[in-house]
Amino acid sequence: MVDTSKILVTGGAGFIGTNLVNELRGRGHDVLAVDLLNNERDDYMRADVRFMRQLERVFETNEFDYVYHLAAEYGRWNGEDHYENLWQTNIVGTKNMLRLQERYKFRMIFFSSAEVYGDYRGVMTEDVMERNAISDTYQMNDYAITKWAGELMCMNSSKMFGTETVRLRPVNCYGPGEHYTPYRGFIPKFIFHALHDKPYTVYRGHKRIIDFVEDSCRTWANIVDNFIPGEAYNVAGRPEWERTIDQYSDIVLKAVGKDDSLVTYKEAEPFTTDVKTVDCSKAIKDLKHDPKITPEEGIKRTVEWMKWYYRLE
Amino acid sequence: MVDTSKILVTGGAGFIGTNLVNELRGRGHDVLAVDLLNNERDDYMRADVRFMRQLERVFETNEFDYVYHLAAEYGRWNGEDHYENLWQTNIVGTKNMLRLQERYKFRMIFFSSAEVYGDYRGVMTEDVMERNAISDTYQMNDYAITKWAGELMCMNSSKMFGTETVRLRPVNCYGPGEHYTPYRGFIPKFIFHALHDKPYTVYRGHKRIIDFVEDSCRTWANIVDNFIPGEAYNVAGRPEWERTIDQYSDIVLKAVGKDDSLVTYKEAEPFTTDVKTVDCSKAIKDLKHDPKITPEEGIKRTVEWMKWYYRLE
Repeated sequence: MVDTSKILVTGGAGFIGTNLVNELRGRGHDVLAVDLLNNERDDYMRADVRFMRQLERVFETNEFDYVYHLAAEYGRWNGEDHYENLWQTNIVGTKNMLRLQERYKFRMIFFSSAEVYGDYRGVMTEDVMERNAISDTYQMNDYAITKWAGELMCMNSSKMFGTETVRLRPVNCYGPGEHYTPYRGFIPKFIFHALHDKPYTVYRGHKRIIDFVEDSCRTWANIVDNFIPGEAYNVAGRPEWERTIDQYSDIVLKAVGKDDSLVTYKEAEPFTTDVKTVDCSKAIKDLKHDPKITPEEGIKRTVEWMKWYYRLE
Repeated sequence: MVDTSKILVTGGAGFIGTNLVNELRGRGHDVLAVDLLNNERDDYMRADVRFMRQLERVFETNEFDYVYHLAAEYGRWNGEDHYENLWQTNIVGTKNMLRLQERYKFRMIFFSSAEVYGDYRGVMTEDVMERNAISDTYQMNDYAITKWAGELMCMNSSKMFGTETVRLRPVNCYGPGEHYTPYRGFIPKFIFHALHDKPYTVYRGHKRIIDFVEDSCRTWANIVDNFIPGEAYNVAGRPEWERTIDQYSDIVLKAVGKDDSLVTYKEAEPFTTDVKTVDCSKAIKDLKHDPKITPEEGIKRTVEWMKWYYRLE
């Protein structure tokens, strides 16, 4: 590909955003990142997507071919504890972006989540959100509801104003760049706790496929080479990488070099999906989705990054 | 019924709220109304549901058996033009109410809308939102999305915390007490314009059933006598009252005593449901839903009220 584009990444200083900006810049694209806070980075502007005026400042001095809209409050319990922020950032923020898209006509990539499938027990193909019974996928928490509501808003804007958007439904993306907070996923949680000799709990019974962030970002960056308006894509790791949560804990402990003496094992948590089996054949076909990093290798790399980040060496 | 209850009505100074408070007080219930602004009414407190602290003030000095949660930004285009208010009031406001419900354990009646059925063409029974294909009812605007998201939030709170909520899906409620704004429904719009000799547009093709507010309020007030947690109810006028929008315009003009020389007729508006056929048999069975006021009679009464309100006599 010789073609390069002018690209905006909202949430560009976050975990996925930082990795995606690197991937896009590595391909020669001209990328501006925006995020919530001031920082030291180049080609970066501060803008809180909740506030239209701050976003308008970005568009007054820039034109974009593509916008990756990642800015969001992340996570089920984060959303329950900070629901004011969740709804304003994920929904009002997305509506602001849609209004700008209707005005400036850039192509948008909206980061949804496989959480939209709710408690669905079958194989999650993208069209489950079209053809299945509504009660199959009742979203089970506000975070999941914001993601589905955001998808509906993108679809409505396309119908009414002809905007062009691709919706992405990532699943358990992990890797270097993800700081630990109590609201983060199980991989950074296990690694952080194991590294710091802090006890943690493992809920048995859940199976998950995790996807290494550099693998995901390659797939997401490929969208600009084959942008199909209106499509939705699952993006997840390989089916053969499915592991139980306790297996992931074992992989983490092995990578960290510790035993499970500080681990408490419990039965499955209520209000989360027990098993997530996600079909990615559409992303494989359209976006050359081709994850390469096994959980064992990806966790090893994430452990190395966290050791560096938290100055544990 | 000798039993009376302590009841809170949020949005209690609005169109439906005012009528509902009157109906409940007429039955001997002890009713507190809250709404956005200060006013002259008795048994009223100002509280903006977007702000938890203001709601907490209400609960610090009161205990409630039932809460009718009506406070909401209303209407499709109002929601598109004022989406920041829409999401904060309808969603953050409802989440605030749910958190209070989890704490204080009152029974809640959540005012949703038949807008949750989206563009569904079949007969709308309540379980369409369970058993139908997801794409049958994609909500077509932010207002509709807030109402469905609100229902999901109520259901999730019930599953997680055992809260007891009934969801109502009113359809085209109209009548005395509804001031005209450009974002109001077609009945107050037609009446206001006809009374003031202002031109208005009628979109042909749509059929609607309207429900006189005093009829609806009787049904809603009956909930406290047969509260079935988890139920959802359509509440609409009688099927035999279905009229086209142009017929409603004719009824209005007759009641006002004018001809249609200031009416422009156009083909159906995009992005709204063409035909709404709503099944109310559940409300008839459980809530003694029994609307009595025909469109002709209800519109006559609404015209009389608007003449009085706008000092046209």
